[in-house]
Amino acid sequence: METKEEQIQSQTGGSFLINAIPESIFIESDFSEEQKMMVASAQDFVQQEVKPLADELEKHKDLAQTIKLLEKAGDLGLLGLGIPEAYGGIEVSFNTTLRVIEELAKTTEFSPAFGVQTSIGMAPILLYGSEEQKAKYIPNMVSGKWKGCYCLTEPDAGSDANSGKTKAIYNVDEKAYYLTGQKMWITNAGIADVFTVFAKIEDDKNLSAFIVEKGYEGLTLGEEEDKMGIRASSTRQVFLNDVKVPEENLLGTRGEGFKMALNVLSTGRIKLGIGGLGVSKNAIDFASEYALNRKQFGQTISSFGAIQQKLAKMVVKTYALQAAAYRTGEMIDQKEQEFQKSGMSVEKAKQKAVSTYGIECAIIKVFGSEAQDFVVDEGLQIYGGMGFSEEAPMARLYRDSRISRIFEGTNEINRMLIVDMLLKKAMNGELDLMSAASEVQKELSSIPSFSDNGNTDSLERSVQIVANLKKLTLIIAGSAAQKLMMKLKDEQEILMNVADMLIQIYVLESVIVKTQRMKDRHGKEASAAQIDICQLFMLEAVKEIKNSAEEALWSFLEGDEMKMMQMALKRFAKIESFNVKESRRLVARRLFDEGKYNF
Amino acid sequence: METKEEQIQSQTGGSFLINAIPESIFIESDFSEEQKMMVASAQDFVQQEVKPLADELEKHKDLAQTIKLLEKAGDLGLLGLGIPEAYGGIEVSFNTTLRVIEELAKTTEFSPAFGVQTSIGMAPILLYGSEEQKAKYIPNMVSGKWKGCYCLTEPDAGSDANSGKTKAIYNVDEKAYYLTGQKMWITNAGIADVFTVFAKIEDDKNLSAFIVEKGYEGLTLGEEEDKMGIRASSTRQVFLNDVKVPEENLLGTRGEGFKMALNVLSTGRIKLGIGGLGVSKNAIDFASEYALNRKQFGQTISSFGAIQQKLAKMVVKTYALQAAAYRTGEMIDQKEQEFQKSGMSVEKAKQKAVSTYGIECAIIKVFGSEAQDFVVDEGLQIYGGMGFSEEAPMARLYRDSRISRIFEGTNEINRMLIVDMLLKKAMNGELDLMSAASEVQKELSSIPSFSDNGNTDSLERSVQIVANLKKLTLIIAGSAAQKLMMKLKDEQEILMNVADMLIQIYVLESVIVKTQRMKDRHGKEASAAQIDICQLFMLEAVKEIKNSAEEALWSFLEGDEMKMMQMALKRFAKIESFNVKESRRLVARRLFDEGKYNF
Repeated sequence: METKEEQIQSQTGGSFLINAIPESIFIESDFSEEQKMMVASAQDFVQQEVKPLADELEKHKDLAQTIKLLEKAGDLGLLGLGIPEAYGGIEVSFNTTLRVIEELAKTTEFSPAFGVQTSIGMAPILLYGSEEQKAKYIPNMVSGKWKGCYCLTEPDAGSDANSGKTKAIYNVDEKAYYLTGQKMWITNAGIADVFTVFAKIEDDKNLSAFIVEKGYEGLTLGEEEDKMGIRASSTRQVFLNDVKVPEENLLGTRGEGFKMALNVLSTGRIKLGIGGLGVSKNAIDFASEYALNRKQFGQTISSFGAIQQKLAKMVVKTYALQAAAYRTGEMIDQKEQEFQKSGMSVEKAKQKAVSTYGIECAIIKVFGSEAQDFVVDEGLQIYGGMGFSEEAPMARLYRDSRISRIFEGTNEINRMLIVDMLLKKAMNGELDLMSAASEVQKELSSIPSFSDNGNTDSLERSVQIVANLKKLTLIIAGSAAQKLMMKLKDEQEILMNVADMLIQIYVLESVIVKTQRMKDRHGKEASAAQIDICQLFMLEAVKEIKNSAEEALWSFLEGDEMKMMQMALKRFAKIESFNVKESRRLVARRLFDEGKYNF
Repeated sequence: METKEEQIQSQTGGSFLINAIPESIFIESDFSEEQKMMVASAQDFVQQEVKPLADELEKHKDLAQTIKLLEKAGDLGLLGLGIPEAYGGIEVSFNTTLRVIEELAKTTEFSPAFGVQTSIGMAPILLYGSEEQKAKYIPNMVSGKWKGCYCLTEPDAGSDANSGKTKAIYNVDEKAYYLTGQKMWITNAGIADVFTVFAKIEDDKNLSAFIVEKGYEGLTLGEEEDKMGIRASSTRQVFLNDVKVPEENLLGTRGEGFKMALNVLSTGRIKLGIGGLGVSKNAIDFASEYALNRKQFGQTISSFGAIQQKLAKMVVKTYALQAAAYRTGEMIDQKEQEFQKSGMSVEKAKQKAVSTYGIECAIIKVFGSEAQDFVVDEGLQIYGGMGFSEEAPMARLYRDSRISRIFEGTNEINRMLIVDMLLKKAMNGELDLMSAASEVQKELSSIPSFSDNGNTDSLERSVQIVANLKKLTLIIAGSAAQKLMMKLKDEQEILMNVADMLIQIYVLESVIVKTQRMKDRHGKEASAAQIDICQLFMLEAVKEIKNSAEEALWSFLEGDEMKMMQMALKRFAKIESFNVKESRRLVARRLFDEGKYNF
């Protein structure tokens, strides 16, 4: 048997597909008292500083207020979480940082400004900067004195970021680069002092990254974009016209920019996903309160099954996101420690830990942003006519949330990345998907075992089901890779089907383990709602996986091969019936009893 | 064999569930040249009058412009479609009116103002007014001189409209009513000259309806609501403080208001659904144009499977909505003629024709508004970052569209109404659901026939599938009604499951017959895309029905009864595999070739 340490070491991004379900994952009640105090201070900041200004921020787009709020957050230490004390930060776990971001995300109009400052605004310097660069910029960004932004996207280079046209020409005499180009959709551009700009040096194939300061000549900004939401954050174009940048402002090494961008985006992705969790909890709390107060047909609408069902579905998605997101955060924390123990620098360890779990970060981004939009949309519907009014909270949540499926790579790009990263790991031997897939093939040609049928514990049955779903995904992905070979990259539809299966499996597994832990800790009765949530999510996940599997199979197999695979589908994607209506009602009742999301 | 006329007479709302699939339904190419000219004039109005003002209307909320546009529409005859010439209208079929509304809906910021004027603003007077009332108001509303609004909703009476607190006290001496109350979410209130106000006379249990004019003392308005969308339409509260209304302004008879409201809402519902069609076509055209022009990774994004798949899904929903909506319009037209032939007045015939198909109107509302939100959401996603910008068209479509699932009864209320209306028709003998259900029970206990297996024509197989899906729905609804009896109304979740099955069946059937007609008219090759759309929609519908059926069964049956029903589910909800990826690609290619939605 592996020790806990060995288990962690055998883990890598995507290994969930071939590993057994984990014994344990991090759940919210694992946060220490100290960590909870930090969360409380973030909650205070949101309630006392941001909320009173939120309407004004939203309506007048008064960026001076946004600046003040960022500075206030700096005073409170909220901009320096997870950053070494040497640079003015507070060394907390990655999961603690995520937990704080979850709270900040509840201010949807303001949170992108905070998010960029603490994530992609600072990360390139923190993770790839020289000692001098870090010493100069990080403390000033942690304090909130300097605001940062991240200039990657260009008008013709969005998803295809590496195709950017911004050029950097080196001048030997001046020991400086001259940058020329145009950047677009730059969050915080209008308030930024420090711009991380990606550009190609001379005729390089790959991007490099530079630190550009506000005062540099030739750096100008476009008008504020008129956006559908997140209106308390600045979004502008950034024009660089022969901007002289001293050579010491090159970040990392020449040509490393694209790798850097991708890596920083991984951090951005999980943070965006966690943001979706904050927004979802918020929307549930609002909608549940509204349902408990709004009367129609002589009773509060909370008494109607149609409303209870909606709230339960909202809770199920949120619970699932929560389980998977903090599980991922903890995995990153553990990897970071492991790397540090092996002698890596703190920054290198942070950077490598996140990139190890690039697949999982993308999963959280996709699942989180979609959960968020679902929850907010249903929340708005519960409000009825009031949902469409800007006087009530839902309209703004609806508008603000919609960016998350586009930010940090559209969800479509992220889905394809998930499969791409997984296949690369299989190719370079990091993940032995092939052996795992051929094991399943062998099992398929044997007679099915019915040994698990006697199991009456729903969680233990779930463990069996998720194992089967992994088998199904392995043989479908394996068969697609074998059948289509190099053509697979042109079959985006199939890649997306496989991505959807991976997403559901990872999240479902997280849900099961979280629920098991809740049950172990609080007993079966006290965690009855969680057990029902687990069942409800499993139903959803199995249907989604079945659907994706079927679409994929039908699209690349024919005849006997397809029939074989359909058999596998039947065998591996079975689920037993339960009273979904009563389960949802139970979840809704528990929500009403608690008065807010607390699962 | 029935003649066509007998067939029409045997048709009533909901009869699609027990009747065989219709031989033919109305499709867009059935519009005559004259009707098409009317559509062209609506298109001109939109392009030449509304579009140039759209940004201004949206941004400055300049209602003077909205008024001018309504008057211009009046000049062009667009406000009087379907209204007798005696009142200044143009007598066209209901379907022609719908077709025009489809065009107007493309101006999402303005269309609610137009929609209220031509629909719920005028309909109560037109359908229930006395000769004097009609003569006084209708010509002035048709010309656009007077604007109308519909005052039903109150702060505490939304879905539960009949619980409104607005009171009307009769004064015998003055031969007048005094109205006091508060109305909310009143579209066009700020520009209206004529207010249809629902109020209870004295201690009546049911609402009555009154015509209230702008100048009446005691009638005041709240501030303009700050709405998420449809910003070129006025939405305000209407306060009535002892407003004296002459008794001749009572509409119809005392206590008839609620029936009137429901009936008028049926018209509003199908018009809202048709509006979703216009918006969806518009969003597809925008998104497809964007995809054909936006380059990433060295090629236009239209070449990517992920994008093609999205566009194809958008087309499939839109095609389905189109088929079902014009089918319903034609059914209403035919009923109206039938009623007129039997000696009914034009108004009475119109009114009864719409109320006959209340179920179908609600289906179009629910399916249409959900299709619209789906299409607009995917369209926004195709635009990527630009989708979130108010400079591009998608953000506004996204915001404006969201009201449709709430307007004219939320989709949840409409779903429950669909089943409620159906069960009432079964109870009063208008629809013999019981015999039909017991036929299916008999069939279930016999050995299944495999006679349809040899059929290789996909459309003919579809006909068989839809017949099976009807059987499934019949036994599930029947079994729920039997099992739960009077308790069924408290089981909203099951009602919604049944509603979802009915919606999908009605729309699927429409899709099949439309496709058959296209194939007959243009040949198999020229209608290859339509045949694929039909397959794709069927896959979607079968999955939705399976899912709803399963959730319902699991929620009210147990043991052997459930097992029996699961067998029925397996037997009646079967579908054969096909290459969904290639089908979607074919549909997308056809869209790109046409340059716009033309299916």
